[in-house]
Amino acid sequence: MKEIFEHIENNINETINNLFRMVSQPSVSAQSNGFDRAPDLMCKIAEEYGLKTTILRPDNNGFPSIFAEKKSKNSDKTLLFYTHYDVQPPDPLELWESDPFKPEKIGDRLYGRGMSDDKGNIAARLAAIKAFLDIEKDLPVNIKLFMEGEEEIGSRNLLSIIDKNKNLLSADACIWEGGGRNMSNNPFIYLGLKGVLSINMKVKKLNVDAHSSYAPILPSAIERLTLAINSFKNEFGHIIIKDFHSDILPLSDEERNAILSLPNDSKEWEDTFGIDFSEYNNESIDDMKIKLYAEPTANVAGFNSGYNGPGMKTVLPSVAECKMDFRLVPDQNPNKIFKNIKDHLIQNGFSDIDIEPFGKVFPYRTNISSPLVNLVKETAFQVYKKEPVVSPNNPGSGPMYEFGGMLGLPVVSAGIDHPTHKIHAPNENITVEDLILGSKHIALIMKKLVTNE
Amino acid sequence: MKEIFEHIENNINETINNLFRMVSQPSVSAQSNGFDRAPDLMCKIAEEYGLKTTILRPDNNGFPSIFAEKKSKNSDKTLLFYTHYDVQPPDPLELWESDPFKPEKIGDRLYGRGMSDDKGNIAARLAAIKAFLDIEKDLPVNIKLFMEGEEEIGSRNLLSIIDKNKNLLSADACIWEGGGRNMSNNPFIYLGLKGVLSINMKVKKLNVDAHSSYAPILPSAIERLTLAINSFKNEFGHIIIKDFHSDILPLSDEERNAILSLPNDSKEWEDTFGIDFSEYNNESIDDMKIKLYAEPTANVAGFNSGYNGPGMKTVLPSVAECKMDFRLVPDQNPNKIFKNIKDHLIQNGFSDIDIEPFGKVFPYRTNISSPLVNLVKETAFQVYKKEPVVSPNNPGSGPMYEFGGMLGLPVVSAGIDHPTHKIHAPNENITVEDLILGSKHIALIMKKLVTNE
Repeated sequence: MKEIFEHIENNINETINNLFRMVSQPSVSAQSNGFDRAPDLMCKIAEEYGLKTTILRPDNNGFPSIFAEKKSKNSDKTLLFYTHYDVQPPDPLELWESDPFKPEKIGDRLYGRGMSDDKGNIAARLAAIKAFLDIEKDLPVNIKLFMEGEEEIGSRNLLSIIDKNKNLLSADACIWEGGGRNMSNNPFIYLGLKGVLSINMKVKKLNVDAHSSYAPILPSAIERLTLAINSFKNEFGHIIIKDFHSDILPLSDEERNAILSLPNDSKEWEDTFGIDFSEYNNESIDDMKIKLYAEPTANVAGFNSGYNGPGMKTVLPSVAECKMDFRLVPDQNPNKIFKNIKDHLIQNGFSDIDIEPFGKVFPYRTNISSPLVNLVKETAFQVYKKEPVVSPNNPGSGPMYEFGGMLGLPVVSAGIDHPTHKIHAPNENITVEDLILGSKHIALIMKKLVTNE
Repeated sequence: MKEIFEHIENNINETINNLFRMVSQPSVSAQSNGFDRAPDLMCKIAEEYGLKTTILRPDNNGFPSIFAEKKSKNSDKTLLFYTHYDVQPPDPLELWESDPFKPEKIGDRLYGRGMSDDKGNIAARLAAIKAFLDIEKDLPVNIKLFMEGEEEIGSRNLLSIIDKNKNLLSADACIWEGGGRNMSNNPFIYLGLKGVLSINMKVKKLNVDAHSSYAPILPSAIERLTLAINSFKNEFGHIIIKDFHSDILPLSDEERNAILSLPNDSKEWEDTFGIDFSEYNNESIDDMKIKLYAEPTANVAGFNSGYNGPGMKTVLPSVAECKMDFRLVPDQNPNKIFKNIKDHLIQNGFSDIDIEPFGKVFPYRTNISSPLVNLVKETAFQVYKKEPVVSPNNPGSGPMYEFGGMLGLPVVSAGIDHPTHKIHAPNENITVEDLILGSKHIALIMKKLVTNE
């Protein structure tokens, strides 16, 4: 691999140039900005690297995914990469020190929207492919590179795209976007993402707002909604919705130990949020890690009713509304969970609460015993020279289920991330070092996939 | 009284002219509109009726109250009238069919902002005074006419104005603004108003909003606030704040019977609010009347936290806030109730909830056995020829305590109201008939105050 790694280092300027070409082209899915040109540009660049491309359009007017592949002459193994070419809105623009769509190198960092999330990951994968093709005139495995166009707006068409293209996307393993290094520069690898069920709850008790002098005889929409919210948890904060936990796949000992071995970030959380965990609860850091990485949640994201302006209005509001997100863990199914919540409300006397779903992401977690996990860990250690940190399940969410669950693949992350990259924020960036290290890691995974399994 | 009543009828055009002069002058306290001229105009008109006037200015930049008096040559009894000359904002202007400050007579109705509430009541009192002075060359009792300038914005300076002018305002009885006829044209008399304690509750759990993936380990401000709200009542909706009910003066049998004799408006409430009481609760109409007219409330007027826009934001909000109003009945004290609520929160583990008062009105109820009540009832029957409806305590609130409690006076309403007058709404009006009947009722009360006691 010495020559491959040297090629990645020696050709870093070409990699950066192509990354700059991608970042220069806006592709802001939330603002529908740039999709007249972005898909073609992504295809053009992939084709320059020797890949064959196909644009996978959703049935509706959503933004297409791009599929690019190149076969190996000597391997029947196939590695699928999940990435996305859409980016977050650059706003607030006034906080950028450079133009988000005019990439710049300042010191050892490259700035621009999407530089790290996720065009940097696409560039690293292309750099690894290029190294093999230049040095070995072949790829060690067949490569399928999937680039989604709607990740930043909830992957709303991904499930149907995957469903329709199962054969096209068949593979032996999937490497996820993301991952890279943590604050201590240990390689950081994750094997799963939580799912999400987002709901709206609304209760209307009166045709019109009433003067609050009627409070003795009229029902209160706000009180009904607060009672419904409180009915979801017991006094210890445990979710008590019937059957909510029924399908949860227990952590194996190995997974539990991996979570408990994750760095203790409690001090950082305390500083960020201005809280003192010792005052807030009496849980051990071990309990907190298990909860954060591997347990479901019921969170109220917004609550709105009545008069909230200056001073006072003596009103009894007719309507109250709230938004909740339930993060789910394997093998909870957001459709079943929605039914559980609905049943819970009816069984607890809340049939007056209207509940609507408007976001569903399935959870997924690759088994920590999967050979792919070891492969990514071992190759990370070889490239980064530091012990990898493995998180069986991340607290956040993403469309990993579509690849892991629907295509039946082990999915492990490997990437170019670093906590200093400011993804989703102004001045998003990547270091040249992270781009080189990430590309080398991808190259080594490609090489070892054939020999290790 | 025949001549007095005829005088009122014969001089109705002069009464209307003076009412139009008052209505033509804006005096919108909420919008600080017209107070450069309104107090002087009210004094001028009162003086034209033979009263001596004093402007009572609050210490701050609030709007003054106007005191006007005229002594009787032959009586040592004094009757105090509470009224107010400020009016509600005329908005929404586009719904007026006439100019709110250019009074107009259309058919038998007079239109304009303040025509009924409360300049019509002032005009009725002046018409009665004028009748006695013209016919008998004297008043049957000493008259003190108090006209507040801040009733529509919560009477914020009234308590200190009354406190500083106790001698000036000393009297034997007080006739309240409001009252008149109900929808069946029975005279409607009320003896009390509820008090109000308005509070703001706020809970801040985090320095900044968190991504909702942190929900397993971070506290939720919304959940804390919903729990605090729910802690105020038991499952039957009864307020369970310790000592909340301690000072409540029980209804006498006579008061209870008076409340139970009030018209059954449940059908009208059902139509207005689109509810079905039989589905909502199993209370008898008797229970509902007692609750509405004579029991305290804890109402949530507004709740605001987190993201409430379109779609979903996976956020764990740092702060949640709500506004509540507690309507109080005699002899609850809003200052003690505020302390009870504060103690309740601390004793129930909610010391993280910040609570601020920003509105306090004391409750007041004149004893139904007071001779003044009989006097107003009997005179009402004589004038209106229909059985009066007596409400010992109204569901709404107003500054009656300042007169009844602080000055130690019996307070009973008598006025020119009718449910069709659209007070506080566009096209506020009064009928000529209500103005005449109300003036006659006031005149008869003045006459009988001397002979009846």
